[in-house]
Amino acid sequence: MGYVESLHAKAIELSRLSVEMTAAADSGHPTSASSLAHIVAALMHGHMRYDPSDPASPTADRLVLSEGHACPIVYAAGSELGLAVGKGSGERRPMTVEDAMTLRAIDSEIDGHPNPAEGFPFFPAATGSLGQGLSIAAGLAAAARLDGSDKRVFCIIGDGESREGQVWEAVDFIVDYGLNAVCPIFNCNGYGQSDPVSAQQSPEVIAAKLRGAGFDVAVIDGHDPVAVRDALIEHVRHTDDAGARPFAIVAETVKGWGFVKTAGDGLHGKPLTGDDETAALKELEETAEALGVAGTNGDLEACPAPATASPPAGCESPPGFAEAMNTYGQASALSDGKFAPRKGYGIALQALGHANPDVVALDGDVKNSTFAEYFSQDPDLAHRFFECRIAEQHLISCAAGLASGGKIPFASSFGKFVARGYDQFEMGFISRLNLKVVGSHVGVNIAADGPSQMALADVAFFRSMAKVQADAGGPGLYILNPADAVSAYALTVLMAEHEGACYLRAARPDTPFLYDVDADFTLGGHGVLAEGADVLIVASGYAVHEALQALATLSEEGIKAGLIDLYSLPFDGEAIAQSAQACGRRVVTVEDNYGAGFGSEVVEALLEHGGSFRVKQMYVKRIPKSGRSADDLMTYVGLSAGDIVAESRALAG
Amino acid sequence: MGYVESLHAKAIELSRLSVEMTAAADSGHPTSASSLAHIVAALMHGHMRYDPSDPASPTADRLVLSEGHACPIVYAAGSELGLAVGKGSGERRPMTVEDAMTLRAIDSEIDGHPNPAEGFPFFPAATGSLGQGLSIAAGLAAAARLDGSDKRVFCIIGDGESREGQVWEAVDFIVDYGLNAVCPIFNCNGYGQSDPVSAQQSPEVIAAKLRGAGFDVAVIDGHDPVAVRDALIEHVRHTDDAGARPFAIVAETVKGWGFVKTAGDGLHGKPLTGDDETAALKELEETAEALGVAGTNGDLEACPAPATASPPAGCESPPGFAEAMNTYGQASALSDGKFAPRKGYGIALQALGHANPDVVALDGDVKNSTFAEYFSQDPDLAHRFFECRIAEQHLISCAAGLASGGKIPFASSFGKFVARGYDQFEMGFISRLNLKVVGSHVGVNIAADGPSQMALADVAFFRSMAKVQADAGGPGLYILNPADAVSAYALTVLMAEHEGACYLRAARPDTPFLYDVDADFTLGGHGVLAEGADVLIVASGYAVHEALQALATLSEEGIKAGLIDLYSLPFDGEAIAQSAQACGRRVVTVEDNYGAGFGSEVVEALLEHGGSFRVKQMYVKRIPKSGRSADDLMTYVGLSAGDIVAESRALAG
Repeated sequence: MGYVESLHAKAIELSRLSVEMTAAADSGHPTSASSLAHIVAALMHGHMRYDPSDPASPTADRLVLSEGHACPIVYAAGSELGLAVGKGSGERRPMTVEDAMTLRAIDSEIDGHPNPAEGFPFFPAATGSLGQGLSIAAGLAAAARLDGSDKRVFCIIGDGESREGQVWEAVDFIVDYGLNAVCPIFNCNGYGQSDPVSAQQSPEVIAAKLRGAGFDVAVIDGHDPVAVRDALIEHVRHTDDAGARPFAIVAETVKGWGFVKTAGDGLHGKPLTGDDETAALKELEETAEALGVAGTNGDLEACPAPATASPPAGCESPPGFAEAMNTYGQASALSDGKFAPRKGYGIALQALGHANPDVVALDGDVKNSTFAEYFSQDPDLAHRFFECRIAEQHLISCAAGLASGGKIPFASSFGKFVARGYDQFEMGFISRLNLKVVGSHVGVNIAADGPSQMALADVAFFRSMAKVQADAGGPGLYILNPADAVSAYALTVLMAEHEGACYLRAARPDTPFLYDVDADFTLGGHGVLAEGADVLIVASGYAVHEALQALATLSEEGIKAGLIDLYSLPFDGEAIAQSAQACGRRVVTVEDNYGAGFGSEVVEALLEHGGSFRVKQMYVKRIPKSGRSADDLMTYVGLSAGDIVAESRALAG
Repeated sequence: MGYVESLHAKAIELSRLSVEMTAAADSGHPTSASSLAHIVAALMHGHMRYDPSDPASPTADRLVLSEGHACPIVYAAGSELGLAVGKGSGERRPMTVEDAMTLRAIDSEIDGHPNPAEGFPFFPAATGSLGQGLSIAAGLAAAARLDGSDKRVFCIIGDGESREGQVWEAVDFIVDYGLNAVCPIFNCNGYGQSDPVSAQQSPEVIAAKLRGAGFDVAVIDGHDPVAVRDALIEHVRHTDDAGARPFAIVAETVKGWGFVKTAGDGLHGKPLTGDDETAALKELEETAEALGVAGTNGDLEACPAPATASPPAGCESPPGFAEAMNTYGQASALSDGKFAPRKGYGIALQALGHANPDVVALDGDVKNSTFAEYFSQDPDLAHRFFECRIAEQHLISCAAGLASGGKIPFASSFGKFVARGYDQFEMGFISRLNLKVVGSHVGVNIAADGPSQMALADVAFFRSMAKVQADAGGPGLYILNPADAVSAYALTVLMAEHEGACYLRAARPDTPFLYDVDADFTLGGHGVLAEGADVLIVASGYAVHEALQALATLSEEGIKAGLIDLYSLPFDGEAIAQSAQACGRRVVTVEDNYGAGFGSEVVEALLEHGGSFRVKQMYVKRIPKSGRSADDLMTYVGLSAGDIVAESRALAG
């Protein structure tokens, strides 16, 4: 059978399975799925180079299904190809049609939207919150380039989905880096969930936007086998030609292809069940007859992947803080005993870069503020640095793609701007990717620039995920909030060594060292800076310095205050409770951010670990503004040393 | 003096003041400011129609400075024009040069980035987190159109800033709605913070992207007075021509215009102080001489605004739940006693739309899921509905613009996708705008679609702002989490009546009514569904229904459990503590979201209001997946009625 007939036959078969599996699940998106029938069949049954039994191998071509709700079509192909399914790598088995029919069941690997973590490793990352896939694809291609692999990365984006600005952030990034290995495929079936798509998302306008941004574009009939094949070959030509622009495919498709009369115009997110299912399957048979492929299943096979690339160079342990400071030109700060946490992060990033070839860094045009520039300006490391420009959604998703590609990505920006990528981060969290995000300029202490630049809600947001348990036990995420450069350095190194998501807050001011340069830190640990008897102050981040000042005053007044540096969340709640008991069960918590953060977690720990305590939570309780000094702001929001003294005195007195 | 000389002279003067005020503040962005010297002078000194003493009047043209860090140039113009400053509307005074020199001081209205709430009402909203201004401008223009005003809205966007995808979401929206009153001005000074901008943000590529998206574009020299004036006039022509495409200006400018030798290439975010300041001022004088305008200040004046438009039609109280259900075609659901909270929201939105002409609604292509379609499909209301498509960043910022324009905007999407606009929401919060955001499909109970569609971290994020105090006292924000349609309806109405930010969670399932149709609700209130003696269950949202089932089982076992429906956060913590005391100080909290949410707030309240309690917090502690029923998922995450029984029994027994 020729290619045209084979692809039509396969498209019919995949559409049929999509209808059946969504009917079995009584939910899902069969019409979106079938609009991709030919494209997915062409990709998975011959064009992509991969081994169905090991679809995530380092050299395999990858498919990011950005419009995740269309996943039944990929599951259909997977059931035909015996694609590996199974949660652990040791528990993989070839997918069957029976597996497909478990779509969306609670004990099934065939999840409602793509998620490799549930046991479908063909997908590089979880998708379903729209607009993120092209950034993930770019990250995968960037990782492949570092590995010397010629892997191709396909990304299918819905027409309505292309309204998401992040898609265009990714487009710019792909042009900037010439990542021609990425092949964006826009699936123009003309319908969103609640309406036909806007004229702004028509094939013509999408193509015009892509061309304006520097892409070559083929606009094709997405159900014409020859057009699909030729476009994919054109993409290969663009990857082989060093001078070529990136290449994208804009495919005009039909929602509910093959059973469009049954589906009706624009039906979205509704399975066809009962008589509707019967009618759709009958209409698919009629479509097959009209195409001359009734009763056949084509003769397409998956194309093997290239041999595995050589293993990456091994990694070593990074040096300690003092050695790193000396090695990387910061000897004078070392002897001064004063260095910003953000700079401690920068030096650690540089040291990690030298120690571990998998460590990569990404920035959003603030590398001279986060001090990620210590990495980017190092000639040995610059090629592993990705400047995402002012595009934080892309920044986080691109990091997710790099993580999916085996790298350890550190994505840093102002903590406030990291919020632009919260949903992207959560998708990476759902994917169980090894994401390291660093937010600088946290808290009101940055003062002059005002609240539009201050991270204040970040602790609460990330804390919600820190309270989720990871699959392997332990917290789903660590929030790290170092108060000095020594701990910032050590915690950055620990982040890199930990397999799992972490968020580090890297404060701006040059603060004095609180720890010996060879002090020990642990994820989940805390520092005891002073033992007390009358009141325990538990502070985190920049607030620790205010608390230290308060301690001196309290001591003069004869009040013995303990001080804990809560540099990690989660932490050892029992230990904190014991310290609190030793301080008369009187606790003041201090943090330079909005509430629902460290202090709230301390309160929960105290309640859990023993009875009645008197606790005063101090955090940012009013919307801040600009001021000319950190002291101005700490006073404005009631977190100055004097405020801490007053609260401690009131509790202890 | 002619226009050319006058504009040059004014540009020199504004640049000089920008250098001086940032020097006085010892921080800020004088070079970004001066790159806008001619454009801002042309806008504020003659083109914009507004009264400097009342720059936020309903008919005044508005300027959204999306690249907020360039604000010194606007402050400079303001000090020349005597623009109103002062925090309360009764405390307004004309701005002076002395005011300008207080830039960024803790007691100054002249904040580091634009923020009307600090006393500079010329700015419609806080900016500084980049990429949001054009969406705000679009919202302002949409509000003006509803008011029958021909207000023009200018928006200045940095070239580097235009990398933010949100800018292109706004561009599509402006084309969709033909909002030609918006005039986007791209300030192409060639530099970001840490680098020259990418070639993707060159004037040529920005213009090509705009044209691809359907704009007419003028690429001009932003320091040529005639070119600037002509481009602004061309924009007016586009607003007057019903058939015209929207129009944008791409201005090639010089960072540090007038003192570029002193500033050096690309200097960002650094004031010029001491000798540098002296040199910059001297160079500005030389520039003035070279332009033939030394020692002059031009003779430009602000252009008055049109007379105030007629006051809007008055509003009335919306009907009660039962009347609304009957009026809007839901009589059968009313008699069934079962209706989804999201539908309760939809009906309330429709009723509010009829009762209050200021209520508007915005959607992100899920109106058939959030039931905002009850509003959009109502012929009387459709013109006040804005379909933002799949672009949630724009959705939230556009709502902020509508709020700034005097409307009461309800922006709804899936709660998960609202996260795409968290930073945008926080900027609205900083602006003290009257934002109403509604997230549907909250929690694992949506089941089949899986975690990419489930809002889980939302409570923690919004809670951090609920713990901030509003300027007028009271909470900075309310989180509302109704468990049934009766409370969803009432709380939506209360949201509209409350002046301030609110976030409502509108669960998906059709749940039975928990309340009489005329029950009373309050922001900050809670419902007592059962009095108990042995254990108090405090549940919120969908979890209330699981708790009700648990109550029945516990009762059979002889355990008297109380049940509180915690539909609001903040809530009356003392009342909860009293109920807990009546239940033996044993409390189980249940919520269908990640932790750091309702239960955490309950723990804080208990500790504050009296001593020792035994508390078990139940929330989503593992990453969910798909399942075919809500029960599957509630069991998977340990929040089923059976789990609640087990925990309650363990505490009580």
